Amino acid sequence: MAGSAKILPGEFELIARLCAGIRPGRGTIIGPGDDCAVLAPRRRPILFTIDSMVEGVHFKLKWAAPHLFGARALTVNLSDIAAMGGRPAACVVNLALPKRTSLAEIEGLYTGLRRAARMAGVDIVGGNITRASELSITIALIGYLEGRAMRRDTARPGDEVFVTGTIGDAAIGWRILAGKFRTLAPFSRKHLVERYVRPAARLLAGERLAGFSKTPTAIDISDGLLQDLGHILEQSRVGADISPAAIPLSTAYRKAIGDDLSLALFGGEDYELLFCLPPGHTEAELSRRLQIPVHRIGKIVRGRRLTLDGKVAPRMAGWDHFRRFGAAR
Amino acid sequence: MAGSAKILPGEFELIARLCAGIRPGRGTIIGPGDDCAVLAPRRRPILFTIDSMVEGVHFKLKWAAPHLFGARALTVNLSDIAAMGGRPAACVVNLALPKRTSLAEIEGLYTGLRRAARMAGVDIVGGNITRASELSITIALIGYLEGRAMRRDTARPGDEVFVTGTIGDAAIGWRILAGKFRTLAPFSRKHLVERYVRPAARLLAGERLAGFSKTPTAIDISDGLLQDLGHILEQSRVGADISPAAIPLSTAYRKAIGDDLSLALFGGEDYELLFCLPPGHTEAELSRRLQIPVHRIGKIVRGRRLTLDGKVAPRMAGWDHFRRFGAAR
Repeated sequence: MAGSAKILPGEFELIARLCAGIRPGRGTIIGPGDDCAVLAPRRRPILFTIDSMVEGVHFKLKWAAPHLFGARALTVNLSDIAAMGGRPAACVVNLALPKRTSLAEIEGLYTGLRRAARMAGVDIVGGNITRASELSITIALIGYLEGRAMRRDTARPGDEVFVTGTIGDAAIGWRILAGKFRTLAPFSRKHLVERYVRPAARLLAGERLAGFSKTPTAIDISDGLLQDLGHILEQSRVGADISPAAIPLSTAYRKAIGDDLSLALFGGEDYELLFCLPPGHTEAELSRRLQIPVHRIGKIVRGRRLTLDGKVAPRMAGWDHFRRFGAAR
Repeated sequence: MAGSAKILPGEFELIARLCAGIRPGRGTIIGPGDDCAVLAPRRRPILFTIDSMVEGVHFKLKWAAPHLFGARALTVNLSDIAAMGGRPAACVVNLALPKRTSLAEIEGLYTGLRRAARMAGVDIVGGNITRASELSITIALIGYLEGRAMRRDTARPGDEVFVTGTIGDAAIGWRILAGKFRTLAPFSRKHLVERYVRPAARLLAGERLAGFSKTPTAIDISDGLLQDLGHILEQSRVGADISPAAIPLSTAYRKAIGDDLSLALFGGEDYELLFCLPPGHTEAELSRRLQIPVHRIGKIVRGRRLTLDGKVAPRMAGWDHFRRFGAAR
């Protein structure tokens, strides 16, 4: 009898079914099915990251087909590898499953996950399934550095701050899924929702940036532009001045909220790259080299302050929530 | 403003606080705080595993001090490395936190986790925190093989089956925590509860086994003795005959349920090692070499059947739950 404290009965068979057809690549010596996966040694520094997607917090199954969320769970991890300038290689997956989740939903999640993994050159080498009261997918991902690591703590006064793509779309997309912006034109709605549901990890841009003669400082925009920039400022012990007008916005963003920059500044989940480089690069040159539109949005300055056009930035929610969180009980 | 879809506000500061005082070892180039950890390359095959502990499923905070669960969350992962014969090196930690969790509880969990990591020579190199409706700790662990991997698919007819330690204690301990066995003597209760709350990963035994001239087949006993043996039988395409009377039981186990072997056969969470070796080893020799009591409990046979003293084993729950699970909705 399975002890009540135990993992999901049938876990082994379920994982076997979910992993059926996965053909590990050359870097994988033992794939799913043993106590651990075994990867062949490489002469490259190893990147290691973990991220989680929780139903009700990050997504709702009724919002879109399960395979999209399976793919997205991997993408948010891939984005961390992109921000370091690395190449993803292998992942292990923890599925927490409530009893109400159907096998079709689980298989849908895994179908998306497998597809995203294949496209990114990632082997799914192991998995675990636990019973839980809400659905979540937690993925740990290993990658390798082909060159140097793009860190958060290397920004210097005088560096210019750039971002890839457009910013703020995903935050609006999330709100559309949650029932807001009902009057927005279908075309714009679709674009913004796609940006939330199907973000792209900027792996090519990250790898190319890491190859620059002077290694950029970089982070991916997951928590929000100013908050993620804040991580760079804190760890590099510098300040920054950002030109809000220079932040690249999509046409759909403008159609949704016009010149309101709040979601571009504070909304998260874009998974674009934010990076800092010494002067000497043009937007056109960077866009060409990274094969994605790049915009200069400001510069790194002495001191520790983050300003918008020279004025102190409004304090971001999130920055002082730790105290509140500590007192939450 | 933090989008509602976002990760826990203050996550960054909380992780910084939880990771304060962690001094990464020499193998870690970049520890917690960047998009990914960076580990120095090694010339050893990499072991990679993930496991999760969920409150209400695997533990309840009211059962014991939070630091014990923090330590246990790492131990269940260490056990997977032990079962491969490897040496653990670095982990990343995903904490899913309900609003009701206090900062003291979170710090307690992390204190136990940090201590267990230090004792096992593991660097905590990264973390992630998400909001969730129930507390869970998911850890992905990297280790290295110094020798060959102990696999599940290499058992051959004629091999003898051994286990370390005693079996079934943790399953009783879990039931004691859940309110059963109230008349059992305090000394026995304490022993059995400890075996559930504070399991040991058999890292030394695993590493020594992996150094044997003929590499053993091995698995750790997490799902239950017969179920885990079943994984070896399935993957090795062999059968086994087990002598129930030879299964090592603790005095406390006997005091709790006498000669009833059900929890030794089917209870999980012991994290002892089960391994198969060609004849020629005595229990005394193996106990001395592995520095833990080892008992021979049966042998691998041709065919695909699992028998107990020659009689077909009762069908284990868990083996046929997949179909039930598939129909759960």
